[in-house]
Amino acid sequence: MRPVSIVGINHIPVRKQHSDNLRVMGAGVVRAAMKDARIRKVDALFCGNMLGDELQGQKHLGALIADEAALPGIEALDVRAATATGAAALRMAYMVVASGEADRAIAVGVEKMSGGMGMVTPALAKALDAEHEVPVGATMISMNAELMRSYLQRHNVPEDALVGFSVNAHRNAKHNPNALFHGRSVTARDVRNSREIHAPIRLLDCSPICDGAAAVVLVPAEEARAYSSHPVQILASSVATDHFRLEDRPDPLMLEAARNSARIAFRRANVNLEDVSFFEVHDAFSITACLLLEAVGFAPAGQGWRLAAEEEVRLRGKIPIATMGGLKARGHPIGATALYQACEIVLQLTGRAGRNQVKNAKIGLLQSVGGVATTMLTHVFAAM
Amino acid sequence: MRPVSIVGINHIPVRKQHSDNLRVMGAGVVRAAMKDARIRKVDALFCGNMLGDELQGQKHLGALIADEAALPGIEALDVRAATATGAAALRMAYMVVASGEADRAIAVGVEKMSGGMGMVTPALAKALDAEHEVPVGATMISMNAELMRSYLQRHNVPEDALVGFSVNAHRNAKHNPNALFHGRSVTARDVRNSREIHAPIRLLDCSPICDGAAAVVLVPAEEARAYSSHPVQILASSVATDHFRLEDRPDPLMLEAARNSARIAFRRANVNLEDVSFFEVHDAFSITACLLLEAVGFAPAGQGWRLAAEEEVRLRGKIPIATMGGLKARGHPIGATALYQACEIVLQLTGRAGRNQVKNAKIGLLQSVGGVATTMLTHVFAAM
Repeated sequence: MRPVSIVGINHIPVRKQHSDNLRVMGAGVVRAAMKDARIRKVDALFCGNMLGDELQGQKHLGALIADEAALPGIEALDVRAATATGAAALRMAYMVVASGEADRAIAVGVEKMSGGMGMVTPALAKALDAEHEVPVGATMISMNAELMRSYLQRHNVPEDALVGFSVNAHRNAKHNPNALFHGRSVTARDVRNSREIHAPIRLLDCSPICDGAAAVVLVPAEEARAYSSHPVQILASSVATDHFRLEDRPDPLMLEAARNSARIAFRRANVNLEDVSFFEVHDAFSITACLLLEAVGFAPAGQGWRLAAEEEVRLRGKIPIATMGGLKARGHPIGATALYQACEIVLQLTGRAGRNQVKNAKIGLLQSVGGVATTMLTHVFAAM
Repeated sequence: MRPVSIVGINHIPVRKQHSDNLRVMGAGVVRAAMKDARIRKVDALFCGNMLGDELQGQKHLGALIADEAALPGIEALDVRAATATGAAALRMAYMVVASGEADRAIAVGVEKMSGGMGMVTPALAKALDAEHEVPVGATMISMNAELMRSYLQRHNVPEDALVGFSVNAHRNAKHNPNALFHGRSVTARDVRNSREIHAPIRLLDCSPICDGAAAVVLVPAEEARAYSSHPVQILASSVATDHFRLEDRPDPLMLEAARNSARIAFRRANVNLEDVSFFEVHDAFSITACLLLEAVGFAPAGQGWRLAAEEEVRLRGKIPIATMGGLKARGHPIGATALYQACEIVLQLTGRAGRNQVKNAKIGLLQSVGGVATTMLTHVFAAM
């Protein structure tokens, strides 16, 4: 496999009720990312979108976006991994370039959730087991509430132990113009006092329903400098899965797929945990961020919450996370999320993250969660 | 890229109202294909399914099947290209092995359509443009009826000119125990007299709504003999797209994406049209088979129908197509279809196609149609 780099990025502000449709949003970031890479053509496009089937009645979005972006003729496919869908599109674009099948590929993610309020929760729940989990009332929130309840109990930690994750994400979103909660401040008290959505999960523990689109352009690393003065290399891409249902896992609080996919990615990238400068974590819920930090190895089991409580996840902490606001506060337009994160990682690794810049950022880690950590993708990025 | 071979296959009989669910059907063919390849583990699984979102309320099927097949931990992703979804899963499995990222991969396709009669047509129509085509009543059938009407008119051919495609498919399905229409005979008269579904398309011009699952195991070609005494090499895999909407195409009867993806695949495989022993064509409708034969180059524009009328598409004809019954008569369980065809191509190229054997079969061609030939995948296979 040949090394692969990102040479163009684009992401639009995450919003509620974006006025454009999927096609226009997707084609917009595709064209802009190509412009950023100073190219007029790509060989292949991989599209990530999770909910278009239900919310917009649209399948086959990759081909639609390729056409709208004036790229008819090129390879265009749709890739999914439930709530990790954006990362699946990134992985396929990576693979098509790494294999040599294409010289220039684009990964694009787009999601419009805010129009179909009542339909979002059931559509998201299709990431769960439609026969054994959904019929008994399971939703993505209820499953994560179960994890949080069980975490607090087992490790005997106070109910507000995870508040710091939300506060940190909002602090970082404040200065990110692309964040849904740009310019807003959220305190620990706000989180504690926010409405209980599904106990013990509160409103401010949850990533918001929103719209967004993002894209990255990939080329062989050895050609990267010809396209960009600030390329970023993808050192590794990996996927691992777990038993589909929580009840089948020996320990539901140990996210095995997260651990395994990180392990595989670190091996492929030839880096260690200590090399990681910052971690774009999948903080769809506060408990998810906490458990991922433990699974990857940044904290022992039961201690992940301390990283937030002790402010070690801040931009200048031991392991900065959600550096541009994360899923919690930048927003989580599902199919686009990992591509937002990839764009943000590129900004961090090239010193363009503004007031959110992580100092001496050399290696960025990205993890993406499909379902209740059933499918986990890990990507490792490096400054070039 | 390293060469890739198929060393294990499995496909279950296509049926209406299969009693098993998606998970069980998918895991069943995965396990059986692995047994055929004499392996207990694969590194990666790519799943093709188009309609599970609507008909079974299930996304995230790759991970569900991996778990059910007792393969938790492995990479598992979902891939789609509308009605060419099965071929997209095949391509991704091919890519992950060709790139060196995985040593053993499985592509699995599964679809259960027959339970949700009234929901199938609208769900399939999501392969079209949800904003410009579907609101004015377009369905997959109406779009193909438009193509057929325009073909008959422009080339001034009799309305029953395409009847031979259906007759040929049914003739071949008769001896294929996996075919939905196994054991049944269909005459030209039957086709001519069948009910008009959407003029000029008649019932027997259409592939049926049905259920099925199929899987193939892929490994590096140089290791293929260690797994199988009758491996088949994938010489090439390609994707091309066209303008999404028919109205945007200079000539809707020239399926540009089919022509381009075939051209790319032939170049990658280093074969010519004359080398092709048989063609597993995407005969979702009679007109589709006809136009694909022309696009790939087996007949000049306006002459594709003659190949059927003159029986040159028979097993002993110039270019045998739909050798095991095709989409028309073996059946078209969408996400599984291309994987059925891959299995059938393996049987043909290894002399195991029974009464449907194409003599001296050396090179098999597979084409898969997403939408109204918007996304086209081409795969080329060779006996080893």
